[in-house]
Amino acid sequence: MVRRATHASESAPRWRHLLRLMALYLEDFAPGQKHVSGTLRVESDAIKAFAAQFDPQPFHLDEDAARGSFFGSLAASGWHTAALTMRLLVESGFRPAGGIIGSRAEELKWPRPVRPGDELRVEAEVLEVRASGSRPGHGFIKCRTTTLNQNGEPVQVLVMNLLVQSRPA
Amino acid sequence: MVRRATHASESAPRWRHLLRLMALYLEDFAPGQKHVSGTLRVESDAIKAFAAQFDPQPFHLDEDAARGSFFGSLAASGWHTAALTMRLLVESGFRPAGGIIGSRAEELKWPRPVRPGDELRVEAEVLEVRASGSRPGHGFIKCRTTTLNQNGEPVQVLVMNLLVQSRPA
Repeated sequence: MVRRATHASESAPRWRHLLRLMALYLEDFAPGQKHVSGTLRVESDAIKAFAAQFDPQPFHLDEDAARGSFFGSLAASGWHTAALTMRLLVESGFRPAGGIIGSRAEELKWPRPVRPGDELRVEAEVLEVRASGSRPGHGFIKCRTTTLNQNGEPVQVLVMNLLVQSRPA
Repeated sequence: MVRRATHASESAPRWRHLLRLMALYLEDFAPGQKHVSGTLRVESDAIKAFAAQFDPQPFHLDEDAARGSFFGSLAASGWHTAALTMRLLVESGFRPAGGIIGSRAEELKWPRPVRPGDELRVEAEVLEVRASGSRPGHGFIKCRTTTLNQNGEPVQVLVMNLLVQSRPA
């Protein structure tokens, strides 16, 4: 179950297609399984573009304004970090049957900001697997995803319950 | 403390400027305070554009693919809903001193998907106010933001701890 995805930019369409065929059902998951994504570099322009659209606060938009703020220098919106984490996960070949469908997060924290030039990767670990009481043919896996920068420092920790299909009878 | 923001598109720059001057310090917050955002309509193109960049799964990208999925028709990524919630909050005039800086969410759920044409608004409520033990001059407010569609149905519930400056002595 432990699979290492290639760097996003190296993933050939054919490899992606194969991974898509290898969807994992609820019965394929077990606590302790780990999964590692490729990497993704975050540029200053991307930080500002995301902020302009979704989190237009000075410290996410402008270097000078950021210097006088809590962050001290330009920092990505936490929601940008969350969105990039999702992209890394989707592109990594982590492929529960039915898709990666989050139902409820129990924790989401940003221990340190993402800075221009940071290179992010995601480590995912399965914490729990359980059947759904109300939704026949489905269950939930609880996963912790830790998003790390190039120094191995966590920039986001997310504990999310994902809806997953059971293997068809 | 209960302030109602005007519709985003109706907010004059001058009104925004005044709100920016009215930053709220830790001492200005109390449990039970509520705040309501303006509204924002989510179009199909925006759902697909966000998904292409951050959550490239078929049910967020393509109407036909979505029909055969868990969602039944095109649905926004939950992270898109989260990002739009942040934008509504930032634009609403909810203005803690130092900015809206999330440190840790205790809950994040998406009770139903956002669909093309949905019109979203955010209701925020202060749940707790506490000083910081480790960070002099700062404290935390715990807020619940509920993002609602045009039918008053919740599409996201987020309980977030925000870092807020104390009033200067």
